[in-house]
Amino acid sequence: MNIPSLILDKAVEQLSTLPGIGKRSALRLAISILNKKTEDIQLLAQSIADLEDKILLCNLCNNISDTPTCSICSSPNREKKIVCVVENIQDVMAIEETSSYKGVYHVLGGVISPIDGIGPNDLKTETLINKLQNGEVEEIILALNATMEGDTTNYYLYKKFSPFQIKITTLSKGVSIGSELQYIDSITLAKSLKNRLPFTI
Amino acid sequence: MNIPSLILDKAVEQLSTLPGIGKRSALRLAISILNKKTEDIQLLAQSIADLEDKILLCNLCNNISDTPTCSICSSPNREKKIVCVVENIQDVMAIEETSSYKGVYHVLGGVISPIDGIGPNDLKTETLINKLQNGEVEEIILALNATMEGDTTNYYLYKKFSPFQIKITTLSKGVSIGSELQYIDSITLAKSLKNRLPFTI
Repeated sequence: MNIPSLILDKAVEQLSTLPGIGKRSALRLAISILNKKTEDIQLLAQSIADLEDKILLCNLCNNISDTPTCSICSSPNREKKIVCVVENIQDVMAIEETSSYKGVYHVLGGVISPIDGIGPNDLKTETLINKLQNGEVEEIILALNATMEGDTTNYYLYKKFSPFQIKITTLSKGVSIGSELQYIDSITLAKSLKNRLPFTI
Repeated sequence: MNIPSLILDKAVEQLSTLPGIGKRSALRLAISILNKKTEDIQLLAQSIADLEDKILLCNLCNNISDTPTCSICSSPNREKKIVCVVENIQDVMAIEETSSYKGVYHVLGGVISPIDGIGPNDLKTETLINKLQNGEVEEIILALNATMEGDTTNYYLYKKFSPFQIKITTLSKGVSIGSELQYIDSITLAKSLKNRLPFTI
């Protein structure tokens, strides 16, 4: 692309480092920013700069937070003895949106993925191990994505946590609500048949 | 969405003001920014802030530029007597990419669109009218999008420019290169039949 301004070109280059934003989308974004009001451009730039300076990770669960301990870990209404282990903060938000979980979380910050160079030692498990050693945990829910990497990490964590004599559970796998059997992949269908439950009304 | 950080929430809100970016994409972008290196976050924020401070519009053609007159208008290799009228700078870039145009441009900054509240007086035609009054122009190419708004604007500009006794042309309409007749809309097909050209090899 032949962008007639070095400054615009630089903004396009920077924006296109974001995931899912190619050169052409970046140009569209940059031009729309260009057409914003002065104060709106500064607000946007500042909100991005703030991401670097001001966001913390919770010292108990690694969830992002504006305070040293996040609002979930410091809430008196959450059951601290139940810890749900997830990959990232989007997963925390997805579970929070269900409004059906009252325990706390532990954010690993990734899953074991040799192809991306992420090994077991890159997972942030230290604060969780501390809790386990202090006997603060009764149940760990392994809630990683149902992918190869998630399963590998589940297995690794299961091995690591089982000496602590606690309950270790994982999310149930099966047919999604509202889905049609003919369109479900056969591994999921086989699993939901094998794990079939008593019918209740 | 229940975002556990006010700072992240603010960044998401700002990013979701960009075109085509919803709340969920904005969150994905914000988290990916969060995971960048400190200096990369500052580079991104600065490149956006610079869009406000440093970019100019060319004083001859309204194209964006880092200098008062843009590189096209100030190039000795461009034919100043031919002016291609386009809606926005993306159109300039699209035509420049063909490497087949040696005239200069005039960027209107919009097209007449009553539904968006854009009337004839909102088009930036002043500098072009000046050029016409000084007899600097021999041909104007109306290169607006082939839409209702583009056609309306073409017609308005044609009426406005015709007193100046210059050549006024427009882009040819017809079958796209590589397209199959069965899939072409019938208005385009009818137009390309009506405007048929002598066959050459």
